[in-house]
Amino acid sequence: MDKILIFGHKNPDTDTICSSVVYAMYQRMLGNDVEAIKLGELNNETRFVFDYLNLEPPRTVTSIQDEQKVILIDHNEFNQSIDNIENAQICEIIDHHRIDGLSTKTPILINIQPVGCSATIIFELLKRDGIEITKEMAILLLSAIISDSLLFKSPTFIDRDLEVANQLGVISGIDINEYGMNMLKAGTNLSEYSAKELIEIDSKNFDTSLGMVSIGQINTVDTSDVLKNYDKLKMAMLDKKEKQNLNMIILMITDIMNSDSLCIVIGKENEFEKIFNVTLENNQAILRGVLSRKKQIIPYL
Amino acid sequence: MDKILIFGHKNPDTDTICSSVVYAMYQRMLGNDVEAIKLGELNNETRFVFDYLNLEPPRTVTSIQDEQKVILIDHNEFNQSIDNIENAQICEIIDHHRIDGLSTKTPILINIQPVGCSATIIFELLKRDGIEITKEMAILLLSAIISDSLLFKSPTFIDRDLEVANQLGVISGIDINEYGMNMLKAGTNLSEYSAKELIEIDSKNFDTSLGMVSIGQINTVDTSDVLKNYDKLKMAMLDKKEKQNLNMIILMITDIMNSDSLCIVIGKENEFEKIFNVTLENNQAILRGVLSRKKQIIPYL
Repeated sequence: MDKILIFGHKNPDTDTICSSVVYAMYQRMLGNDVEAIKLGELNNETRFVFDYLNLEPPRTVTSIQDEQKVILIDHNEFNQSIDNIENAQICEIIDHHRIDGLSTKTPILINIQPVGCSATIIFELLKRDGIEITKEMAILLLSAIISDSLLFKSPTFIDRDLEVANQLGVISGIDINEYGMNMLKAGTNLSEYSAKELIEIDSKNFDTSLGMVSIGQINTVDTSDVLKNYDKLKMAMLDKKEKQNLNMIILMITDIMNSDSLCIVIGKENEFEKIFNVTLENNQAILRGVLSRKKQIIPYL
Repeated sequence: MDKILIFGHKNPDTDTICSSVVYAMYQRMLGNDVEAIKLGELNNETRFVFDYLNLEPPRTVTSIQDEQKVILIDHNEFNQSIDNIENAQICEIIDHHRIDGLSTKTPILINIQPVGCSATIIFELLKRDGIEITKEMAILLLSAIISDSLLFKSPTFIDRDLEVANQLGVISGIDINEYGMNMLKAGTNLSEYSAKELIEIDSKNFDTSLGMVSIGQINTVDTSDVLKNYDKLKMAMLDKKEKQNLNMIILMITDIMNSDSLCIVIGKENEFEKIFNVTLENNQAILRGVLSRKKQIIPYL
């Protein structure tokens, strides 16, 4: 029980995994007994990173015991975290998302910064403490930034992220654009997923003014390829909405080339139309220039 | 509306005021349009600091307009903050207290660290950014650390605070112990306060498992001197409990020489006795070795 578990959110993405792994390396350098874990299987994009590095990903853990010490990376909302998080002892939070109702009994380290990526914060911590950043660490952190910024396109991405990415590019010695495009393309390989899996790949639940809303995001270079299976996707979304008693499900199918997101919306359709000033046809509407769930969707719900 | 207001909690103490003032100096050096304000009058201890420096304290503001941009220092709980904080635009939080149910619509900078004093965090930010710390800034920050740690005695105080205090001692060129004792003694001059004012000097409300609890703390070198007015204090507490519809009021009268706190407890007396394993006599009990509301009282409520 003394070992501290370090993990990101459910339905892990590249930032959540890579930032957890590097933060665990850092904590071990400081002499702390920690282990990075993941709350679910790697997506294709993150698998590309670990394959590229020939590195073993963290093991999957889905529930913890009471009083387990934990460090939360890249999330702070309990409904995105591990089962039984309510009864864990949270030691630290490193994140770049909004905070939503978190309470702790005593003061803990909370380092939340409005940057594009948790990896940016972790890089700055490493630099602050004079830690030598290996090529492996650099590629992990760089992959996270490329992923969260969709290769520097997303509006969540700021100058600090770019500066960190450039420094990581130098340390890693890789061609950021070439590596990044290969990584993102690996993530758009959706052929092996069922509709039910597709809506879960990068899905998070949010407690909003419209009630509990699940928002998933799929990155693609070909929206029509994803929409081939529209009927199955819609069925899976209807099924999930009922089973999880959600008020609304949004699936963002994000075209990483054109920087638009086609949204499939189930539940509270009228509210969605009003908020985003679009008309849903067959539960679908394109939001032009929308890449970020965090900055361009959630604040309006 | 574009100016950002920087402030600490209601019933301001030395850390809340001095940290706000120094953080505002820092923000102005970064080119930002900010103003430090205070939410209530200076206590005698903090007045000692501003008199010593011959420095004008910030003006008092008690309510803000909707969408006013603010930076919260040394607190994050809304019931300890300015009126209408619910409708403000919180830009940053720098604090060393527990977090209790905070929500933001978008990601903001939250820098909460389990150190003894907000001034410690601010000093480290100044150092990180290579800001030259003037003698005045050093004395303000040092005063905050001396106050929150009761001259390095409180259990909230950790090595990092001590290290910062020592660096500030060098920059300021003052004798920390002599200056600190004079400052703390100035704070124990309670002669000019009415009973009603005494219970408010350093009072904060907390939403706990026992309901809404107000906890005040008075530092003294002579507990009996404060207790001379026990009947008036109790009357003021009963009155406040009813008016604010509180479940419980605790007044800690902390002997800074002996490091004990005599607590006057109104409401939920049985629960208090059980939790702290003491017997209240005439609503009073001494908690030996208890100096910190944050570490030694609140986590148990």
